Amino acid sequence: MKRLGGIEAGGTKFVCAVGTGPDDLSAATFDTTTPWETLRGVIRFFHDSPVRAIGVGSFGPLDLAPESPTFGRITSTPKLEWQGCDLSGEISRALGVPVGIDTDVNAAALGEARWGAARDVSDFLYLTVGTGIGGGAVVGGRLVHGLVHPEMGHIRVPHDVDFDPFPGACPYHGDCLEGLASGTAIERRWGVPASRIESDHPAWELEAHYLALGLATWVCTLSPRRIVIGGGVMRHRRLFPLVRLELQRLLNGYVRNPALGPDIDRYVTPPGLGERSGVLGALVLAERACLGSGAR
Amino acid sequence: MKRLGGIEAGGTKFVCAVGTGPDDLSAATFDTTTPWETLRGVIRFFHDSPVRAIGVGSFGPLDLAPESPTFGRITSTPKLEWQGCDLSGEISRALGVPVGIDTDVNAAALGEARWGAARDVSDFLYLTVGTGIGGGAVVGGRLVHGLVHPEMGHIRVPHDVDFDPFPGACPYHGDCLEGLASGTAIERRWGVPASRIESDHPAWELEAHYLALGLATWVCTLSPRRIVIGGGVMRHRRLFPLVRLELQRLLNGYVRNPALGPDIDRYVTPPGLGERSGVLGALVLAERACLGSGAR
Repeated sequence: MKRLGGIEAGGTKFVCAVGTGPDDLSAATFDTTTPWETLRGVIRFFHDSPVRAIGVGSFGPLDLAPESPTFGRITSTPKLEWQGCDLSGEISRALGVPVGIDTDVNAAALGEARWGAARDVSDFLYLTVGTGIGGGAVVGGRLVHGLVHPEMGHIRVPHDVDFDPFPGACPYHGDCLEGLASGTAIERRWGVPASRIESDHPAWELEAHYLALGLATWVCTLSPRRIVIGGGVMRHRRLFPLVRLELQRLLNGYVRNPALGPDIDRYVTPPGLGERSGVLGALVLAERACLGSGAR
Repeated sequence: MKRLGGIEAGGTKFVCAVGTGPDDLSAATFDTTTPWETLRGVIRFFHDSPVRAIGVGSFGPLDLAPESPTFGRITSTPKLEWQGCDLSGEISRALGVPVGIDTDVNAAALGEARWGAARDVSDFLYLTVGTGIGGGAVVGGRLVHGLVHPEMGHIRVPHDVDFDPFPGACPYHGDCLEGLASGTAIERRWGVPASRIESDHPAWELEAHYLALGLATWVCTLSPRRIVIGGGVMRHRRLFPLVRLELQRLLNGYVRNPALGPDIDRYVTPPGLGERSGVLGALVLAERACLGSGAR
């Protein structure tokens, strides 16, 4: 039985892996350059390590409307040369195997649901806070897709411009959540990358405030049973406790459940799979592609 | 075959109905007073018009965790005498029939899904803008419940206090969406009820702005295939066109789909059932209670 392939297609790197799960996975990483060059590396990788099917968790936005003639293509990304790229189609045609595709965060949510921090819940939110901010929601055991797919980083949040005059870094919306709280926003606001900002710097309380505003909105909208947050920015050790406290302050006792009270540490939690949620979730997409259910 | 009963349990009135759908429904309305007095009226109504089962779409928040010992009870409502009220339990015991319960907006969403403006979509948002603001979301054909249930009115939205110094009317969160844009907020901000505010008053553009901020957040979070908006405030004829335009302005072309472009009039739409979405949806809850699936 041939193994499955997973691709985490990110804006700066592509992670390709072959395996069956967290304990059986070999991976390689390529820089994201042009679609042509990047795909050549991907196809060579899987040519050398044959698989039954491939799953792709991709940056986006993607066209995921099942009825669309451009299903699977990347749409309004600021990375212009990738606009319109038919990632799953190209890979499937080159390798002759079924390829399933979904957003990077939806793939990561699938990974966490199967092997990670959301194994025991059917309704949860996976969030990543890195260069950008994205979220994948599972409701009743199924990924939320709807009209297109969620673009959670782009929700609007309160922004006190007297306190934080930074105008926001999102080219579409200025001070949406991603515009205020992504790694890119942190670096532009403070002039240094998040990884080089000290623990006692006010950047972290401000970051926790914006992230908690997003979480409060998602708690009120999706009522998740758990919130799993990955991404490079979350590696800062003060952030999780600050975000949990600020979320409780913002909700102010309105949503009554132990998860938002004494059990908050378990409610807002890092991924169980570390940085591998996405590529492992891509294996779940590959498995579904085998079964013919495509990206769903 | 006995018919089904539906109750729309609101903060100011209870609508009780017996029937099988929009073309076969007889209803009566009671003022919401004390739990004891109100329930007495409800029970007398169904005593005189026997039904197989009853569905209740109730104001809340409600405890809807299936595993909870206080399932079905009203929790942190500002109407103190209703806190802890076991609406479905009391009615079921008094009448000896199964009773299903869910939030008022979830019931309305079920009504719109069965007979109204969302018959053809499996992923949509039902929103009501009246005394308060609430929302019910259907994802993949199922109501979103999760940890508790959504409390959509309480999402946080940007609030420019220089432009709109009104501090917000929500006792829990001040200027959450409900605090800024409910009928209560409109009346407090301008000193007159929404129903008496003229068409050319700046209140309507401000209202459309806040509602569109909420919709933009929900489009980015749930990616609904339709947004159905009911409630007294939406009866103002200028509001739908203003909200649609403002939603498009806020999304700024980021979510690419005809629904958010040329088809916006169909995307953001009034309920198909007018003011009867809730009580008709309660019939769907009754039907489910018959089948033993409770509130789900």
